Amino acid sequence: MGPDSSQDAQTISQVGEFGLINRVTSGRAQSPGTLLGPGDDAAVLAAPDGRVVATTDVLVEQVHFRFDWSTPHQVGRKAVAVNLSDIAAMGAVPTGLLVGLGCSPDLPTTVVDELAAGMWEEAQRVGISVVGGDMVSATSLTISVTALGDLQGREPVTRSGARPGDVVAVAGRLGWSAAGLAVLGRGFRSPVAVVGAHRVPEPPYEAGPQAAVAGATSMVDTSDGLLADLGHIAAASGVAVDVRTELVEVPQRLTEVASALGADARHWVLTGGEDQALVATFPQGRPLPEGWRPIGAVVEGEGVTVDGDAYAGPSGWEHWR
Amino acid sequence: MGPDSSQDAQTISQVGEFGLINRVTSGRAQSPGTLLGPGDDAAVLAAPDGRVVATTDVLVEQVHFRFDWSTPHQVGRKAVAVNLSDIAAMGAVPTGLLVGLGCSPDLPTTVVDELAAGMWEEAQRVGISVVGGDMVSATSLTISVTALGDLQGREPVTRSGARPGDVVAVAGRLGWSAAGLAVLGRGFRSPVAVVGAHRVPEPPYEAGPQAAVAGATSMVDTSDGLLADLGHIAAASGVAVDVRTELVEVPQRLTEVASALGADARHWVLTGGEDQALVATFPQGRPLPEGWRPIGAVVEGEGVTVDGDAYAGPSGWEHWR
Repeated sequence: MGPDSSQDAQTISQVGEFGLINRVTSGRAQSPGTLLGPGDDAAVLAAPDGRVVATTDVLVEQVHFRFDWSTPHQVGRKAVAVNLSDIAAMGAVPTGLLVGLGCSPDLPTTVVDELAAGMWEEAQRVGISVVGGDMVSATSLTISVTALGDLQGREPVTRSGARPGDVVAVAGRLGWSAAGLAVLGRGFRSPVAVVGAHRVPEPPYEAGPQAAVAGATSMVDTSDGLLADLGHIAAASGVAVDVRTELVEVPQRLTEVASALGADARHWVLTGGEDQALVATFPQGRPLPEGWRPIGAVVEGEGVTVDGDAYAGPSGWEHWR
Repeated sequence: MGPDSSQDAQTISQVGEFGLINRVTSGRAQSPGTLLGPGDDAAVLAAPDGRVVATTDVLVEQVHFRFDWSTPHQVGRKAVAVNLSDIAAMGAVPTGLLVGLGCSPDLPTTVVDELAAGMWEEAQRVGISVVGGDMVSATSLTISVTALGDLQGREPVTRSGARPGDVVAVAGRLGWSAAGLAVLGRGFRSPVAVVGAHRVPEPPYEAGPQAAVAGATSMVDTSDGLLADLGHIAAASGVAVDVRTELVEVPQRLTEVASALGADARHWVLTGGEDQALVATFPQGRPLPEGWRPIGAVVEGEGVTVDGDAYAGPSGWEHWR
């Protein structure tokens, strides 16, 4: 074997913890807000607002991703995207990432290289970097990402501020990831548009701060599915939410995929998770920011309804259930 | 079975993700610096300094802990302690924790309850709280902790500031965790003093900021072992470090345990990891803060020596090697 293929064949046990950390951090430019990057006991990030927004999501192989369905690069992007989406859902802008990686000693280093490349690509889409992390031995590949963010002087947009009369609006795609998952689950690899949406969500990062500026009263990202995540807003705010189906767009592409699979595209849109769209409530009569579309209203009561009635069907995905 | 034993027998798959999060967060008081605690897309913490210190460590069952050697409560304390120690090693004070927990669906909920109780206990020792996290399904129990901290207006104490002539000093215990590990590895459960030190380190949290105030030029915590971690300072600072054995205390208790096991107590002190002591360098002639004791000197060159010579023996522990 030549030196290149020998390099490819290396496992992380051969490279070692420090060698691996060096591989995934060296040569990467840190963002201006990174005051101290990887290589010390801890990183130091600018927190100009005097407050810091922080969130953690863990992704586990075979639970949250499968390498026969997604490349390591795609998994890396997704692991970062789901966290950046949580920062956006507070109305904040991201400032940095920490990554905890648990992986088997016999994992090829190229998998870690590609995971890291995907993470950096998604981070750079919002102008931030991976500022620190940890790499340990584990039986299943486990990716733990922490994202930090800055509120830029605004109040955080929580789940608890929705008031009766507010308009419910969404930014980003709904149902695309669920459609992709359905396609992959049947053994297909296309259409690429929906499969790609499952592999790597495209959260509307900028729509979060824009909603905060526009006076959003509550906000959440759709990780569990539109109705389930609206349920979080309804519960936290002590209100009810009614989704109007005539306002909820079902994209033609999803209708086509659903038709081919004998599935219901509207069900994907209402209940499919992992699109990382943003859902927010706005005071009635307030112009919605660009990219936001109304889908319903906040009313007195509790729970989430569709056209005034309970929605028949599963309404989200909960771990271990 | 009565209602109590039925409760005890519950697995996390029966309680569900949201039920479990509720179990470990409800009724816990958040620290004053927690502006928004668990339950939203992200937490919000005060960052009064305008910068935030951030670090992540991942602990995996059978790799970093074993439930036949440690209780879940002890593992929870340790998972938090190793992260708080990293914050202290920057000269910062901790402000909050995020916890990512991956666990098997058939894990009894009491294990998670105890893990969480241990985490909260250690957090409360420094006046902070768990402000957010994530719980997911995984094959091995995986605990990912992110700690955030505040520099209180000081510059971070990195690994790269040691200069020839500096005094090398240590705060906290050395060798105790290694002694405890050796005892447990032989199938013993006592002496409790060393076994307890392995189960739960006692990092000298306050010594970190005190060293920063006293002008420490570099600092690191001893997770890999004294000589290995001094090696990080030497490499990052472009200097050599010489440890003087006449200055390095070998506690009588460790000598007794080593004698019983046919081991070398000094070797534990010089190379044993996981005590989370703090090691720092100070300008010569500067009074050391309380609790810090000199153990050597920074000199020109590279690498770490003991009494001027290379140390014969393994010098730390690296994953996958």
